[in-house]
Amino acid sequence: MKTALFSFSALFLSVICSAQKDSVMLRKIYEEALGKGQCHENLRVLCKDIGHRLSGSAAADKAILWGQDVLKKCSPDHVWLQPVMVPVWQRGLNETGYIIGQNGEKTRARIAALGGSVGCPEGIMGELIEIKSFAQMDSLGEAVIRGKIVFFNRPMNPLHINTGAAYGGAVDQRGDGAAKAARYGAQAVIVRSMTLAVDTFPHTGGTWYNDDFPKIPAAAISTVDANALSVRMKKDKNLRFALTLNCLAMPDKEQANVIAEWRGSEHPDRIITVGGHLDSWDIGEGAHDDGAGIVHSIEVLRILKAIGYQPKNTIRIVLFINEENGNRGGITYADEAKKKGEYHLAAIESDAGGFVPRGFRLDGSDEQLAWLKEKAVEFEEYDLHYFRGGGSGVDIGPLKDGRVALIGLVPDSQRYFDYHHSNRDTWENVNKRELELGAAATASLVYLIDSGHW
Amino acid sequence: MKTALFSFSALFLSVICSAQKDSVMLRKIYEEALGKGQCHENLRVLCKDIGHRLSGSAAADKAILWGQDVLKKCSPDHVWLQPVMVPVWQRGLNETGYIIGQNGEKTRARIAALGGSVGCPEGIMGELIEIKSFAQMDSLGEAVIRGKIVFFNRPMNPLHINTGAAYGGAVDQRGDGAAKAARYGAQAVIVRSMTLAVDTFPHTGGTWYNDDFPKIPAAAISTVDANALSVRMKKDKNLRFALTLNCLAMPDKEQANVIAEWRGSEHPDRIITVGGHLDSWDIGEGAHDDGAGIVHSIEVLRILKAIGYQPKNTIRIVLFINEENGNRGGITYADEAKKKGEYHLAAIESDAGGFVPRGFRLDGSDEQLAWLKEKAVEFEEYDLHYFRGGGSGVDIGPLKDGRVALIGLVPDSQRYFDYHHSNRDTWENVNKRELELGAAATASLVYLIDSGHW
Repeated sequence: MKTALFSFSALFLSVICSAQKDSVMLRKIYEEALGKGQCHENLRVLCKDIGHRLSGSAAADKAILWGQDVLKKCSPDHVWLQPVMVPVWQRGLNETGYIIGQNGEKTRARIAALGGSVGCPEGIMGELIEIKSFAQMDSLGEAVIRGKIVFFNRPMNPLHINTGAAYGGAVDQRGDGAAKAARYGAQAVIVRSMTLAVDTFPHTGGTWYNDDFPKIPAAAISTVDANALSVRMKKDKNLRFALTLNCLAMPDKEQANVIAEWRGSEHPDRIITVGGHLDSWDIGEGAHDDGAGIVHSIEVLRILKAIGYQPKNTIRIVLFINEENGNRGGITYADEAKKKGEYHLAAIESDAGGFVPRGFRLDGSDEQLAWLKEKAVEFEEYDLHYFRGGGSGVDIGPLKDGRVALIGLVPDSQRYFDYHHSNRDTWENVNKRELELGAAATASLVYLIDSGHW
Repeated sequence: MKTALFSFSALFLSVICSAQKDSVMLRKIYEEALGKGQCHENLRVLCKDIGHRLSGSAAADKAILWGQDVLKKCSPDHVWLQPVMVPVWQRGLNETGYIIGQNGEKTRARIAALGGSVGCPEGIMGELIEIKSFAQMDSLGEAVIRGKIVFFNRPMNPLHINTGAAYGGAVDQRGDGAAKAARYGAQAVIVRSMTLAVDTFPHTGGTWYNDDFPKIPAAAISTVDANALSVRMKKDKNLRFALTLNCLAMPDKEQANVIAEWRGSEHPDRIITVGGHLDSWDIGEGAHDDGAGIVHSIEVLRILKAIGYQPKNTIRIVLFINEENGNRGGITYADEAKKKGEYHLAAIESDAGGFVPRGFRLDGSDEQLAWLKEKAVEFEEYDLHYFRGGGSGVDIGPLKDGRVALIGLVPDSQRYFDYHHSNRDTWENVNKRELELGAAATASLVYLIDSGHW
């Protein structure tokens, strides 16, 4: 009787255990992340000992060595550097903006050159014109714009719930404003910072020229200064702006993606890539953008090793270089994968900050999306609820081949643009638990894909 | 033909409009909250011009007048003060804690008297004993505890996803530690701060004595100091602690709940109460706890008025007094409601911070909970996903009568205890959009209940 009871119990337990395997594994992953997490401390080192790390900079070189070292400590099968030629652009030490009134009185404006901007080390000065849209500028045309400094001042729309949508609706001014204004003969552009916060920090970011027109200097201005300037311009039509930037571009340089590979036991030829970008803008510490994604990715490897998991498929952690001003890391990684005929099962990117995770976005087939939505139930007790189709991430985008599932971690977006590309993007502004929960969510998804994908 | 087309179109549009009415109303509410929101500015005034406001204090008197004034500006039908007798407890200016080593060397520890603690203005000194649980203390008993200073040092468990659960698993030390230790003859207690953060801020909160035993002094110690003290105690068994507190209790005083009433057009006798608590602990600025709930509640009234809504049922905004150390505001409100035979349809409380809202918890009937879950779909595009049964709020709890639906706003919990009851709970640590989204969610729920409840 005892034996029978034991056998029955054992069988019963084994059925239960099998059914609950995923839930047990996720619990282990979350407990490792929250109880013994190392991503917050890794982020501190990256932010404080290295700091911001624009690709092409000496700091980015340091970050590459650091990344290699931290990944090696997680004992994957192999860690290597994948060479990438990156642009080199330096902000320079002298960047100033002044609003100049009728009697020549100067008011300092908080500005920062946009990434990639040409410099104007001798300084330029011109009458201002406030522009809210490219359509408005088109209708004014060269007669009005020529010789002026164009002040792009369309705010991000606060009515979007997702701040990424608000960013998407305004960032044309930063990305294309200089090129478009140059077409009409503008001397320079200053662009309202891409943030919903009303703050005194200029938020930088890339600007892209059009080779058909002159390259003119471009700088971000803080939203507090943009608001004040707009008010003053309504009273004083002849307000001028003086801009000095000594940023400059230099020849390309070789840097690298840092890659760690953990070979799968059953399908070593099938690859699951997990990554973020190691480079950052050259302001702040690149903590949310994208230090968070880097330490999330490293933590995925560490957690799965720590709980004794053995993947069936090959897991690759990739610390991409040059997302911010060129995406050459992402392009190089995808090019090489294609050349080698690699089979990428999934690529997951964390590049939306170290905020509390809400879920994942998937760019792939209907079948993959259906699978993801089915897995939502596993994440319910961890407060993840967002499982939808949509864009994934810049670095992994070039991998798209009609087969790979491209997935982006979706953290809560409300605070992201408060910090984005500004001096506020520091380690102090990343909450330890929120960061850890992002790592746990990502590690959980990697486990679920590896152990039983679509 | 034109007329027929017009009639058909009009009919078609009217059907669509009716079906989409809720979604249109929610959109209006969110646009008002995010585009013209006033809760962030209201919170600034409450936090910066008034500051912390423990019930019984002069600052709480100021807060009551401020609340009355702000509510009147929203033009409800009636605003009044409901008298409440509240306890008066003052921290005093002198509170110090020192760790004293073998050779008498002193190390300052960052402490704060627990709310309600008796003072020890002359200072007391005693040997320390570190305790992790009441069971451990029970087993040690009076022989070991008598004359000692008990150091309660069981951390909040970081493995809970909801930090409220972690708090619930540790707060017995703060609430009952002094009473339990007094039973075994302890001189005083110091309690590890109730936070998951490792920080240098003592986090205060209420402690409650047992009349059968002496009242002994009780103070919170920062988690950084608690960790350091625990390490030192392992090396030095004779470590002592010196505590001076000159806090004291004084006679009760009359203060008030602030109530605004907006009469319903169809069922003025049915009441929907929306509230938070106006009092706070006497450290920090009471920004998340519970300035956020106060400005959420006021904003519900302002938003619904601003979009031209006319409620069918009566809406009451209640700024409760004395949640933190007695809940006499909540008890008084419910007592009076019972005396008058009021019919409360629902009571909604915001007292979990100004963080991004996740949903609502409902304490009520199955039918009410089913209704709430059905409404989840309306909130999907606003990223609310948590609609479950569970506790609602301390202030509205006494209204429970088997009929009223008690509902608590559920903001994301991850950062709450970083700020809770400490000098970090300031306006600067409340994100404008997160706060506004909480107001919009609450106003939306009030609208849904008012326009077509269970």
